Amino acid sequence: MEKLREIVREGRRVGEEDPRRIVHSFKVGVALVLVSSFYYYQPFGPFTDYFGINAMWAVMTVVVVFEFSVGATLSKGLNRGVATLVGGGLALGAHQLASLSGRTIEPILLATFVFVTAALATFVRFFPRVKATFDYGMLIFILTFSLISLSQFRDEEILDLAESRLSTVLVGGVSCILISIFVCPVWAGQDLHSLLVSNLDTLSHFLQEFGDEYFEARTYGNIKVVEKRRRNLERYKSVLNSKSDEDSLANFAKWEPPHGKFGFRHPWKQYLVVAALLRQCAHRIDALNSYINSDFQIPIDIKKKLEEPFRRMSLESGKAMKEASISLKKMTKSSSYDIHIINSQSACEALSTLLKSGILNDVEPLQMVSLLTTVSLLNDIVNITEKISESVRELASAARFRNKMKPTEPSVSLKKLDSGSTGCAMLINSRDGDHVVTILLSDDDKDDIDDDDTSHIVLDDDTINEKSEDGEIHVQTSCVREVGMMPEHSLGVRILQI
Amino acid sequence: MEKLREIVREGRRVGEEDPRRIVHSFKVGVALVLVSSFYYYQPFGPFTDYFGINAMWAVMTVVVVFEFSVGATLSKGLNRGVATLVGGGLALGAHQLASLSGRTIEPILLATFVFVTAALATFVRFFPRVKATFDYGMLIFILTFSLISLSQFRDEEILDLAESRLSTVLVGGVSCILISIFVCPVWAGQDLHSLLVSNLDTLSHFLQEFGDEYFEARTYGNIKVVEKRRRNLERYKSVLNSKSDEDSLANFAKWEPPHGKFGFRHPWKQYLVVAALLRQCAHRIDALNSYINSDFQIPIDIKKKLEEPFRRMSLESGKAMKEASISLKKMTKSSSYDIHIINSQSACEALSTLLKSGILNDVEPLQMVSLLTTVSLLNDIVNITEKISESVRELASAARFRNKMKPTEPSVSLKKLDSGSTGCAMLINSRDGDHVVTILLSDDDKDDIDDDDTSHIVLDDDTINEKSEDGEIHVQTSCVREVGMMPEHSLGVRILQI
Repeated sequence: MEKLREIVREGRRVGEEDPRRIVHSFKVGVALVLVSSFYYYQPFGPFTDYFGINAMWAVMTVVVVFEFSVGATLSKGLNRGVATLVGGGLALGAHQLASLSGRTIEPILLATFVFVTAALATFVRFFPRVKATFDYGMLIFILTFSLISLSQFRDEEILDLAESRLSTVLVGGVSCILISIFVCPVWAGQDLHSLLVSNLDTLSHFLQEFGDEYFEARTYGNIKVVEKRRRNLERYKSVLNSKSDEDSLANFAKWEPPHGKFGFRHPWKQYLVVAALLRQCAHRIDALNSYINSDFQIPIDIKKKLEEPFRRMSLESGKAMKEASISLKKMTKSSSYDIHIINSQSACEALSTLLKSGILNDVEPLQMVSLLTTVSLLNDIVNITEKISESVRELASAARFRNKMKPTEPSVSLKKLDSGSTGCAMLINSRDGDHVVTILLSDDDKDDIDDDDTSHIVLDDDTINEKSEDGEIHVQTSCVREVGMMPEHSLGVRILQI
Repeated sequence: MEKLREIVREGRRVGEEDPRRIVHSFKVGVALVLVSSFYYYQPFGPFTDYFGINAMWAVMTVVVVFEFSVGATLSKGLNRGVATLVGGGLALGAHQLASLSGRTIEPILLATFVFVTAALATFVRFFPRVKATFDYGMLIFILTFSLISLSQFRDEEILDLAESRLSTVLVGGVSCILISIFVCPVWAGQDLHSLLVSNLDTLSHFLQEFGDEYFEARTYGNIKVVEKRRRNLERYKSVLNSKSDEDSLANFAKWEPPHGKFGFRHPWKQYLVVAALLRQCAHRIDALNSYINSDFQIPIDIKKKLEEPFRRMSLESGKAMKEASISLKKMTKSSSYDIHIINSQSACEALSTLLKSGILNDVEPLQMVSLLTTVSLLNDIVNITEKISESVRELASAARFRNKMKPTEPSVSLKKLDSGSTGCAMLINSRDGDHVVTILLSDDDKDDIDDDDTSHIVLDDDTINEKSEDGEIHVQTSCVREVGMMPEHSLGVRILQI
């Protein structure tokens, strides 16, 4: 009784976790009943005298082919269909060939054919590329070839058998595919897309909260709240082990027809590139997590000085990921993460400058180990975040996400900034997509501020002043506000330096 | 033509990678021919007039059930057998129940049964525990139940059908299982065991070579040799992604009967515990790898001083893993890794002392980041190595590995050392298993060296002097040599301190 109650509880949990599972179960039931009633009320066909081979194959096809996602169902259905066709065709040929020999040699010849084909096909199943995509097809190929070769029918009967086998597989397979596509479809591609977005969100959440956790700035009033926050932070752990899910979703997604916002030849492979980078980042975060609340005993005033760039490195990386996640979620091209990446990089530089200034000279090296490891991990994370945003950008252009910007100038991508040149432009559109910041770095040397050759921007809350000799500069007010809040070393200063 | 040659090349690679794949392909062919000839020459049975349903089911069972490893084949075969039995039984009941109603309601009732059962069973397949072990069984259950419920036979015919279905599944399944067990068996358990041993070896190799790579002590004469060494070092990357392989091997291994050195209820789950720790370590190594050849610009004399404990931390961790791998490979209980773990820990302490001594006071903090991160990573690795050796020890005792030691005293495990007590014993047997070092820490305070209460060991190359008031102390000469080479802070000193 207790056991039964446990099972019901487990069932409720499984159902609540993803209600589409319940729908899927109903769909399988409906498909089975549909297909079997189709054969039940069919007054013709070669085996109508009993609900036999034909209906059997159709029912079997439904049970075996109907998978959770459209991609998986299509992959199995197409594999099964094509393999039945090819296997059946080859078996017919083998039969013809064997029947040319005498009645005694025929079975031996057929057995040899089956042996060689089965052994070869089984071996081919070990090929990595075959295993990934056609494993089920190879299985069905062996099955069909063996069944038809070994059957002792006359040739006409075999043709009948092959035909009915193919037609039943078609009936079963096509009804599965139709139901899975048109009744509450579960798209593997959509799932992969959402998984990537949620993984980006999870990591972004950690990075945005990390500063507070690390410096224990939170009020530790309610133990339950603290625990909940910790649990929320540790959601990143799910990202560590998401590889196999992502691989199989991407594998199924490539079988799916265009659907929703996903067009033909959607770059599913690029999703795996982003996912791999996210996993790399999650491993750094895992290491970082073990340093939260580690008590590095450095003087409080030094700590205070370090805190600011420290927080900014992780906060801005987190924000960049959030923007990347939003761009991915809305499927729009965006460069709004660039500003956060530049901010995080300038925070890195600020921290470097601080460390170079000898702030830690009086601290014992041993007490610095934890601190400096955290620095180096955060540094890694900033770098990986840049790679992630770059790969999301590639994804956006490969998937031809729509452009939400209205650039007034032909846009030059951030890439030029990376190459070290100082004269380049940058387009930033904020979350709402309707604000554009174009910055034209026109100097070779950033130091000569107020040089005549440079463009000056007066940051103002309501009005936007433009003054430029080389190009346009639009500074959107909400963005200015954000920039205005930032301390030195950040983009705020950078803009003024231009 | 070029394509064909490529396929042949790929085939050769796949075959060379694991020649058992070729054997497996032959086995599948043999099983198929065997089973089909069994039905071919059978002069009795309900469907002898054509090579039909019966042979079909048998051939199908062979094709579907025969998997690469014994565990996978057994899992599928047993799943299929039991599911066919249960599904068939329930379907008979359903048939009986439905036949009590009239001829018009009967098909509707049967369809309802099929719908409910299929939907329920499909839903149950989402339960994580069911999915891991009984997924295939649930599929076959749905299949059998539907087929037999929906068939329009009379009851006796159904019994016939159910019986023949079961018998063919038995014939097919049992021949698969027999062939897979008795003809060149591939044991998933053995594979998991070997995978763990090789992963331990890989990580150990990296750690033992890391010191040389990091300090560039190697002569970089031949570029090919250097490249080969780098490639060898980076073999650890395979450990990063081994989770899914290990999970499925462990899943199959639990289906396997006792075989070779693996007894009944071999603790396969513990293998996954060790494997998870190894993966943790591999991630640290991955981070470490990025610091190889990073040029930390600290004065050469400081570098020289740090080099020694540095090298020892990684070398001794590597040796501990090597010993753990040997213990696992030979399936013997061993404590020979303990000495290396103590050595690595004392190297950690030595490094701490060095850092505390202010050796880095004149170095700029920024230049220390890479160095101190490496220190902290190595520190982590030393800690994880201890956990690994602990988990291997647990595995050894859970699997009842045979004891290769001849302890003269009842052995007390290292665990007591961890708890901070100083009065405890430790048994160390070297690789050959015939040397025993028993150390009895009898003081509460290690500082009072030469106290009357302690045991003194004079380390000598050929003779072993024992002097003990509390117990025996055997120091084997080869071990003494090893200890003798070690500088202060290492076990050499520890033994003298006892």
